[in-house]
Amino acid sequence: MESFVTKASASAQPLKNADELIDSVETFIFDWVIWKGDKLIDGVPETLDMLRSKGKRLVFVTNNSTKSRKQYGKKFETLGLTVTEEEIFASSFAAAAYLKSIDFPKDKKVYVVGEDGILKELELAGFQYLGGPEDGGKKIELKPGFLMEHDKDVGAVVVGFDRYFNYYKVQYGTLCIRENPGCLFIATNRDAVTHLTDAQEWAGGGSMVGAFVGSTQREPLVVGKPSTFMMDYLANKFGIQKSQICMVGDRLDTDILFGQNGGCKTLLVLSGVTSLSMLQSPNNSIQPDFYTNKISDFLSLKAAAV
Amino acid sequence: MESFVTKASASAQPLKNADELIDSVETFIFDWVIWKGDKLIDGVPETLDMLRSKGKRLVFVTNNSTKSRKQYGKKFETLGLTVTEEEIFASSFAAAAYLKSIDFPKDKKVYVVGEDGILKELELAGFQYLGGPEDGGKKIELKPGFLMEHDKDVGAVVVGFDRYFNYYKVQYGTLCIRENPGCLFIATNRDAVTHLTDAQEWAGGGSMVGAFVGSTQREPLVVGKPSTFMMDYLANKFGIQKSQICMVGDRLDTDILFGQNGGCKTLLVLSGVTSLSMLQSPNNSIQPDFYTNKISDFLSLKAAAV
Repeated sequence: MESFVTKASASAQPLKNADELIDSVETFIFDWVIWKGDKLIDGVPETLDMLRSKGKRLVFVTNNSTKSRKQYGKKFETLGLTVTEEEIFASSFAAAAYLKSIDFPKDKKVYVVGEDGILKELELAGFQYLGGPEDGGKKIELKPGFLMEHDKDVGAVVVGFDRYFNYYKVQYGTLCIRENPGCLFIATNRDAVTHLTDAQEWAGGGSMVGAFVGSTQREPLVVGKPSTFMMDYLANKFGIQKSQICMVGDRLDTDILFGQNGGCKTLLVLSGVTSLSMLQSPNNSIQPDFYTNKISDFLSLKAAAV
Repeated sequence: MESFVTKASASAQPLKNADELIDSVETFIFDWVIWKGDKLIDGVPETLDMLRSKGKRLVFVTNNSTKSRKQYGKKFETLGLTVTEEEIFASSFAAAAYLKSIDFPKDKKVYVVGEDGILKELELAGFQYLGGPEDGGKKIELKPGFLMEHDKDVGAVVVGFDRYFNYYKVQYGTLCIRENPGCLFIATNRDAVTHLTDAQEWAGGGSMVGAFVGSTQREPLVVGKPSTFMMDYLANKFGIQKSQICMVGDRLDTDILFGQNGGCKTLLVLSGVTSLSMLQSPNNSIQPDFYTNKISDFLSLKAAAV
């Protein structure tokens, strides 16, 4: 769907000397690999403490747009991790940050197909919006001649994961994109799969976005992984060189590609959805710089142990 | 989306001698250009009568899957046109006919994302199905560990236009396509636009299909226009040469492409969504053999008048 070119790279190497990697980077970006369901993965707090003690900046990114940064901060807190809002980059925030970065006019409105997180971030950023959960129960009247009115001031439609997706939202957003001159079509992500619950894989934000691609025949601007928007934003905000960032994640086609698209170092952890055999399959063209079993390997894989 | 190659053709010619075209074909396939909203277009009954009197076979095709052939037959009747069920080919019927054509096992089931027409046609064809309108009000429970069960006997998911589209259906159909070995993904059509009411363009079946493309990362098998399935079926059923069929429609990217993909003659009528300037735009690569203003031109454009 996205047309990123995977950089040709040698096969991934097992991480043998964590200290060398740690010393070579200034910032670690973690995908949500630090927890599984509602539990922290063993050894995560100690690993993060060690990295902080070495002066490393930590950033947590997610394509999940259903919560705001503040809401995610609370989730970290209940798990016993202290993470500030500024360290959290969810695609809900990315959508608002993108609109800010292009000086989206404050007198224009954003139509939201998605959940509460996007609304909260738009509000914090000072943008006017409509849609979101309140359109979840709306239906189309089908009397002859019926016309759905839409707000001509909508200048952007933001589409994210939405459990309350319905035809009303498809038609409303489609009218805005098709009929409002210059209206933007922004996707928080195009993930096929999301993790509503641990018990199975759930259809992800890619399905809501796919519906709008089908009805508008336009491609969205993606602000979440693997688009480089968040990486560019981070590098810019913190004044970091991208070569001094290491992206740590468990998905090749989002996390690792995101790191590579952004020109960062990449570390795949095998504690999530990607197995060693998937990484080494001839069908896989995405090779991180390093791979390891779990995040806490940072604590044990010391040069001194050699 | 579809990978049909448009046949390189000369620019469309205005229809000047209708008799010559009529004499050269055995069957006319009409898209729904015969009516607009709930009214027949002027001169249509007389034109159809004239064609029938010359022994021409008439077939009416639509990508709309919300009704069955029988239900469309009643609509024709209320408009004062006598059309038999056998002359009507809606994509709801095409989905069932496709499953029949591949001997889809009668002990397997079809999961339907769509409206009543698909269910009625599957039932007539003797297939077991689930889903459809009855899943329109279903919601996902979000307690931790929740798992949506799905029927392992579903061997095909048929996706058509659906006003009652929701996340439950996306997840159910996605699970079937992703987890049931060999499960087919069939689309009635991928139209961006449909005509629920006259008053505006409505997001079409392409949006429901797009959602499943996004969540399954698979491409559907399309049975409606512009896929050639219906044309092949017609040629086979009636024993017609495709070069003796003329497709008459108002859309370049569905009707005319459908005719051309099937190797038929094509006539564009300008009484619908396509204007002469759209046809002649350098951005348009789809050229019918002929174009004319309206269907009733068949009555007036006589060689004798020259």
